[in-house]
Amino acid sequence: MDEVWMERALALAALGRLTTSPNPMVGAVVLDADGQLAGEGFHAAAGQPHGEVLALRQAGARARGGSLYVTLEPCCHHGRTPPCTEAVLAACIRRVVVAMVDPDPRVAGGGLHRLRQAGLTVVQGVGEAQARALNQAFLHRVGRGRPWGVLKWAASVDGRIATKAGDSQWISGAPARRWVHQLRARCDAVLVGAGTVRADNPLLTSRGQRQPEPLRVVLSRHLHLPHQARLWDQTVASTLVFHSPGAHPIIATRLQEQGVECVALKPCSPRTALEHLATRGCNTVLWECGPALAAAAVQEGCVQEVAAVQAPKLLGGLEAFTPLGDLQVTTMAQSLPLRKSCLERCGDDLIWRFHLDVPTAIV
Amino acid sequence: MDEVWMERALALAALGRLTTSPNPMVGAVVLDADGQLAGEGFHAAAGQPHGEVLALRQAGARARGGSLYVTLEPCCHHGRTPPCTEAVLAACIRRVVVAMVDPDPRVAGGGLHRLRQAGLTVVQGVGEAQARALNQAFLHRVGRGRPWGVLKWAASVDGRIATKAGDSQWISGAPARRWVHQLRARCDAVLVGAGTVRADNPLLTSRGQRQPEPLRVVLSRHLHLPHQARLWDQTVASTLVFHSPGAHPIIATRLQEQGVECVALKPCSPRTALEHLATRGCNTVLWECGPALAAAAVQEGCVQEVAAVQAPKLLGGLEAFTPLGDLQVTTMAQSLPLRKSCLERCGDDLIWRFHLDVPTAIV
Repeated sequence: MDEVWMERALALAALGRLTTSPNPMVGAVVLDADGQLAGEGFHAAAGQPHGEVLALRQAGARARGGSLYVTLEPCCHHGRTPPCTEAVLAACIRRVVVAMVDPDPRVAGGGLHRLRQAGLTVVQGVGEAQARALNQAFLHRVGRGRPWGVLKWAASVDGRIATKAGDSQWISGAPARRWVHQLRARCDAVLVGAGTVRADNPLLTSRGQRQPEPLRVVLSRHLHLPHQARLWDQTVASTLVFHSPGAHPIIATRLQEQGVECVALKPCSPRTALEHLATRGCNTVLWECGPALAAAAVQEGCVQEVAAVQAPKLLGGLEAFTPLGDLQVTTMAQSLPLRKSCLERCGDDLIWRFHLDVPTAIV
Repeated sequence: MDEVWMERALALAALGRLTTSPNPMVGAVVLDADGQLAGEGFHAAAGQPHGEVLALRQAGARARGGSLYVTLEPCCHHGRTPPCTEAVLAACIRRVVVAMVDPDPRVAGGGLHRLRQAGLTVVQGVGEAQARALNQAFLHRVGRGRPWGVLKWAASVDGRIATKAGDSQWISGAPARRWVHQLRARCDAVLVGAGTVRADNPLLTSRGQRQPEPLRVVLSRHLHLPHQARLWDQTVASTLVFHSPGAHPIIATRLQEQGVECVALKPCSPRTALEHLATRGCNTVLWECGPALAAAAVQEGCVQEVAAVQAPKLLGGLEAFTPLGDLQVTTMAQSLPLRKSCLERCGDDLIWRFHLDVPTAIV
């Protein structure tokens, strides 16, 4: 039965998908001494109680002699909330089942050690693969110091993201565009380059599906940016512009006067941008940029997932825009393989998603 | 019950898929006077008996007073075989159900008229949509004077059919390449341009799945063709080269010495090539060409169907090859919409097929 209860804890954890960042999603289930469900909880947001604490609270006295299922090792340090291990001990839980160890160096097995030392039975690794998949973005940020990068584009079936005149509105249908809003809601930041701002003047929000909206980020080394843009309106969502040191101070000042944050990066690259966003607690970022920046992001190891929206139409045109600029691929053997393919139809369109293993040489 | 027996007749008709061209596929079922199955038949190849004649033969005396289900109107003229209407009358069939009228101007309702005049009950239009779909290529050729054109390409998910160095072997996996061999078996001719011969040196056969192999056709206005090519070996399959009048007579002579047929067309274009192939009885042709010829074929109304094979890999590269050259599309409203989308997975790859309505202005 351990797997069944852990599945329930994982489902609870997933309820925090849009809100826990930068924290991981965590769910917990408490059974009483007779194996009956006594409490459930999940972590909703940073600063709010951890999932196991909520489940223990709900169980109250029924937790005594019972079991706790939790998707991540209980913490054993004082963070913004007291250590969960102490709450588990105080509730007189007898058996703890966890899916995975907390990679946070302040925990890293210490929580389980504390519980075992106190005489509890501790089972570890139940549902571990699912728990890791659920928190892949968090784990990637903690392990690599960069958010998990998703690259999304919408193209015609012949692989064009815009006509030679730059027209791209709209390649995909309304259902696929709504799907993109949902995708943005699952991300902490959405990134584009200056070219996309100039060509499309995008809004880049989840249309209210995430509150606050994901941070809108522009990479623009030279700050060649338009005076007016929907991204500069800070009432809907915040915008951050990365640029090279010393780039066009007049434009930087004007952007800052409109409330847009400007940060100089050296070098101003996908990699440094993501490192900066990691320090701000971004677990997942969405690249919605043009071919040149997309190719740079792939080459710098800043893309872990690709979401290709494809529309049943032909655009043609040797000068029309394609999703990805140069990747230094000249032979088929050098092509970047995609795995874990996941296909869905969305209206008349197709959404094909993958994971991308960037060769270690590149990363 | 008419629909049920017609479905069986349609299934019989489809058994001739790889062999009836230039004739249509036709299937027939004979029931005796008690409504019991008495005979079945389908047209296998030009010069061989028609489906209704085979079904009547199998039924023998049991056809007397019975019914005939046939997917196409019985012919009433002497072609390579005697008129089927006379065989129906001789067998003393009482009721005839047909899916559709034969568009051949020598028949065109005359067969049904003959049967009605002789006092038989004639029902028409049962299963007509399926019968039309089954013979869409034949009907297209008879109606337009050109074969039904299928455009196939294999691309990476970012829309590249070859690297900038021209490497394309292989983009798709072995199962998808076998699927392409099957696709070729359903076509009467496979067309490429000179660039594909030079870059890929393709074989373009069905690997024995159709006997004889589809005709291999090269469009090469200037006959800039290599001395050696797998296509010049006429032991596996026949090859036909279309060229402009007066193009490079030395190369034409050398090709002819190797058994390759050379035909001058004025102009040498997708349209004139297909018109020529229609006179040779091709119902379906497969475009397996590069982007420039593919775009010309689309623009000249020579593509009715698109089969996009997509492989889960990234190639990138602004100079890398894309499936389709310029279609004169500058705004999204001018994009060519695809319909009747049909999606299948094939190994790790995806095959997305469509019908293409070319705007009348272009055709």
